[in-house]
Amino acid sequence: MSRRRQVYEGKAKVLYEGPEPGTLIQYFKDDATAFNNKKHAVITGKGVLNNRISEYLMMRLAEIGVPTHFVRRLNMREQLIKEVDIIPVEVVVRNVAAGSLSQRFGLEEGTALPRSIVEYYYKNDQLGDPLISEEHITAFGWASYQELDEILNMTLRVNDFLSGLFLGVGLKLVDLKLEFGRLWEDEDMRIVLADEISPDNCRLWDVRTNERLDKDRFRRDLGNVQEGYAEIARRLGILPEAGPRDLKGPETLQ
Amino acid sequence: MSRRRQVYEGKAKVLYEGPEPGTLIQYFKDDATAFNNKKHAVITGKGVLNNRISEYLMMRLAEIGVPTHFVRRLNMREQLIKEVDIIPVEVVVRNVAAGSLSQRFGLEEGTALPRSIVEYYYKNDQLGDPLISEEHITAFGWASYQELDEILNMTLRVNDFLSGLFLGVGLKLVDLKLEFGRLWEDEDMRIVLADEISPDNCRLWDVRTNERLDKDRFRRDLGNVQEGYAEIARRLGILPEAGPRDLKGPETLQ
Repeated sequence: MSRRRQVYEGKAKVLYEGPEPGTLIQYFKDDATAFNNKKHAVITGKGVLNNRISEYLMMRLAEIGVPTHFVRRLNMREQLIKEVDIIPVEVVVRNVAAGSLSQRFGLEEGTALPRSIVEYYYKNDQLGDPLISEEHITAFGWASYQELDEILNMTLRVNDFLSGLFLGVGLKLVDLKLEFGRLWEDEDMRIVLADEISPDNCRLWDVRTNERLDKDRFRRDLGNVQEGYAEIARRLGILPEAGPRDLKGPETLQ
Repeated sequence: MSRRRQVYEGKAKVLYEGPEPGTLIQYFKDDATAFNNKKHAVITGKGVLNNRISEYLMMRLAEIGVPTHFVRRLNMREQLIKEVDIIPVEVVVRNVAAGSLSQRFGLEEGTALPRSIVEYYYKNDQLGDPLISEEHITAFGWASYQELDEILNMTLRVNDFLSGLFLGVGLKLVDLKLEFGRLWEDEDMRIVLADEISPDNCRLWDVRTNERLDKDRFRRDLGNVQEGYAEIARRLGILPEAGPRDLKGPETLQ
């Protein structure tokens, strides 16, 4: 097997050089981290599930006209993506109070918000991904006003569509984190949705019971983390029959 | 029983004076018309289903911050709404080619569009609801540029959210027609979503089979019109068990 050049290793994913210039292979690990790396675990099958869930959501978003870096899934743990310059800003949309917003403002989790709130965080592990404002983003040149405007519009569209999609399968999209990148094609640059959309970066609660099915199961030691992710995949109709034991998958590309 | 003053009678609905100033009662009839009234039928239970479906969708839209005229459902065929000045423009969003768009441009039904297309029609039965452009709307004063901008933004949000919601229950939102109104509260005016959202004004196809479950069943004599509407309600989870025979409902408010 030929060795592929590793381009980047993150907490939950590895990026390898792709088969053609301008492409990368995104590999989904089973590793889970929280609290800025202070907590770590391996959740068997998580990478396989996130690969499938993110594939499904990115494809549906492309169908409604949201440009993404996703090209196609290659195997159980890998997908082909377009190479982009990642904008170092994590965009968070919150539809219901939870997590750090609840802590910062003393709001009980599940409290309705006056309207959906968009937050920006500087993507920098060493600094603990601090909350930032549009001022910081434009002053430090991480994105221009025009790019930020485009990012905000895309974020709101993604949030509206995914809120509907998850509601249709009995899940409340409490919040989600998005990342964007600059895609160069010939001389043209455009902003596209990048990274992944999965229970690692969305809070998803059962509409009726408010049961957490996302990464909070890991953060808060609620147990059955993999089962929560699998339940989301099952409801989306992308995990028709495979049980938890089928989810290990090959560790490398064939 | 005290007689209520009828304010307006349309093809599928009747509006009555509401219990308080600024409110109306919207009554859903079983009548169906097509081709500008040339075709007419009574579809038993349609009004009951549309009342429920529209209630559900308007409530979910309000939750994501889209203002609507809907207050609450009163009984099987009636809902309480806020009185608005209806803007005489029907706003149509098309995600897939069908109906008059297919005819006008010679596109086979089901053809993907380069992007979702918004169309405006002048709400005027005598003229056959003609297609119009922003020029006509602003020149004839039916809406200002600013109002039209607000209407377009709300339309795109509604389309994104409902596309996701219907996809989550295995339905493709092919197109939908929206109406808006001016709501006066004290001195303030704002634009709100009005009328109804139901299979009478949405095309909804099964994602897998492309089976039509909407008013095209009536327009095209496909049969089982009421069953199509009931299937949509069932998938949305708002018709848990009631069979077709339970849907006649009381004809008048108690």
